[in-house]
Amino acid sequence: MKLIRTVQTIREQIKKARDKKIGFVPTMGYLHDGHLSLVEQAKKENDLVVMSIFVNPLQFGPNEDFERYPRNEQKDAKVAKEKGVDILFMPSVEEMYPEDMSIQMTITNGTDVLCGSSRPGHFDGVATVLTKLFHLIQPTSAYFGLKDAQQFAIVNTLVSEMNFPLSLIGLPTVRETDGLAKSSRNVYLTDDERKEAVALYASLQHAQKLIVDGLNNPATIIMEVKKVIKNRTKARIDYVDILNYPNLQKINVMNGQVIIAIAVQFTHARLIDNIILSANGERVDRLVQGG
Amino acid sequence: MKLIRTVQTIREQIKKARDKKIGFVPTMGYLHDGHLSLVEQAKKENDLVVMSIFVNPLQFGPNEDFERYPRNEQKDAKVAKEKGVDILFMPSVEEMYPEDMSIQMTITNGTDVLCGSSRPGHFDGVATVLTKLFHLIQPTSAYFGLKDAQQFAIVNTLVSEMNFPLSLIGLPTVRETDGLAKSSRNVYLTDDERKEAVALYASLQHAQKLIVDGLNNPATIIMEVKKVIKNRTKARIDYVDILNYPNLQKINVMNGQVIIAIAVQFTHARLIDNIILSANGERVDRLVQGG
Repeated sequence: MKLIRTVQTIREQIKKARDKKIGFVPTMGYLHDGHLSLVEQAKKENDLVVMSIFVNPLQFGPNEDFERYPRNEQKDAKVAKEKGVDILFMPSVEEMYPEDMSIQMTITNGTDVLCGSSRPGHFDGVATVLTKLFHLIQPTSAYFGLKDAQQFAIVNTLVSEMNFPLSLIGLPTVRETDGLAKSSRNVYLTDDERKEAVALYASLQHAQKLIVDGLNNPATIIMEVKKVIKNRTKARIDYVDILNYPNLQKINVMNGQVIIAIAVQFTHARLIDNIILSANGERVDRLVQGG
Repeated sequence: MKLIRTVQTIREQIKKARDKKIGFVPTMGYLHDGHLSLVEQAKKENDLVVMSIFVNPLQFGPNEDFERYPRNEQKDAKVAKEKGVDILFMPSVEEMYPEDMSIQMTITNGTDVLCGSSRPGHFDGVATVLTKLFHLIQPTSAYFGLKDAQQFAIVNTLVSEMNFPLSLIGLPTVRETDGLAKSSRNVYLTDDERKEAVALYASLQHAQKLIVDGLNNPATIIMEVKKVIKNRTKARIDYVDILNYPNLQKINVMNGQVIIAIAVQFTHARLIDNIILSANGERVDRLVQGG
């Protein structure tokens, strides 16, 4: 595995791989099985797998956890190598943003709901860093976990509106055996909170069951989900919402493909989770766009 | 020459040319010798030359000449073919902007001077359409005329900040025998105005002479340029300015590479012209960035 830290070197390496199918896994590091499942899939579908690890300051608000976001470069590099990553791109902030930016990207749709409403500018930062990374890596396909389903929806919009020449692959959320979605932020849970956190996925499974059983009023389903979380955790609920997907528009009645998404705040960890359901209530675990 | 009108077909053609050096000449059509000099250079340096003709509504203000901008698709296609263009991409507005955009690009530096100050949003529109075209064409090099020197400076910023994997080549303004810069908008000049318009380039040549002779106060040089234009035309002066280049910052004393740029409004035509001078007052006619 090549570990590359500069824009110039990654450019040179990618130039050499012009004729190869490149699978790209962008991450913020502190790798867990969720990331590694993306690498596995990328390896199956490409000649060369590039992973980036970059904690992108542009997507953190002033009061968010940019400084405190967990990092472990050495372990990440070891794990990436073991998993078969060919090129690991780990640039510094100065390398990615050498001076004040003169170009701003603003996402005006799908950002006023879910995590977007409490994280203004977050998806603008995601769009900017992905634009830069896509230009540097020039992937055939880019791999994302559907745990960040709003992010996947917005990256869809970015790629399709801006005509990026690549495919997007959204893969299922990887979970602990008790159902908790794997996340770099899970390390901030206290022992008690870790046990409570099982309720997040349980509440989503409960919602799916209600939908399969015929309940079609989103407001009622949302209430039921909140009830499960409130009864089983001490976390503060940030949001529980049901939107169509990937448009992320509010709906008054269950109709078409939807996302049920939740975010809760534990003492030191804000956790998110979601499920995407087709019109008949079945789980949608893989999404592909473009190419 | 292949004439292509859809995003899907241009994608397919570009995919086939993966291993080729692609030279790209983006235009708004109504081709003149300025555009064709770009094609000539692109042919020398690449395996495949792609020209786009697209009058981009996003870069016209509500009171500007989008509807009235001169178009002649048939003649353009003939000229492009004769000149050796391999692929001519002429998409419709619907093809480039299928629905309301959710992503906005905003340029925050270098747009409050020269044409930017009287055309708010103009360069945002330029950046957006070029981002899309660069993704569709995936050029090795893109060719621009330095007549639009502010545009070239801002495209430089776009390409370097966003890490686009391509080189930018800025080539000299092509002029009529009497010095008037070739422009699609020259057709809107009355016969008398066409004669007067010679004063634009004459005023820039006068400025260069003053600088070579040792004058180093931009304000005095600007005054001299304005005097030439006022004495020899009935046009309204929009601006005359001297800025460093490509930063486009104001200067108090001549220093380093500068642009002397003018814009004047005739009855039905707003014309621009400029010269770029190195620190010793010599003309800079070719600019290259990145790659």
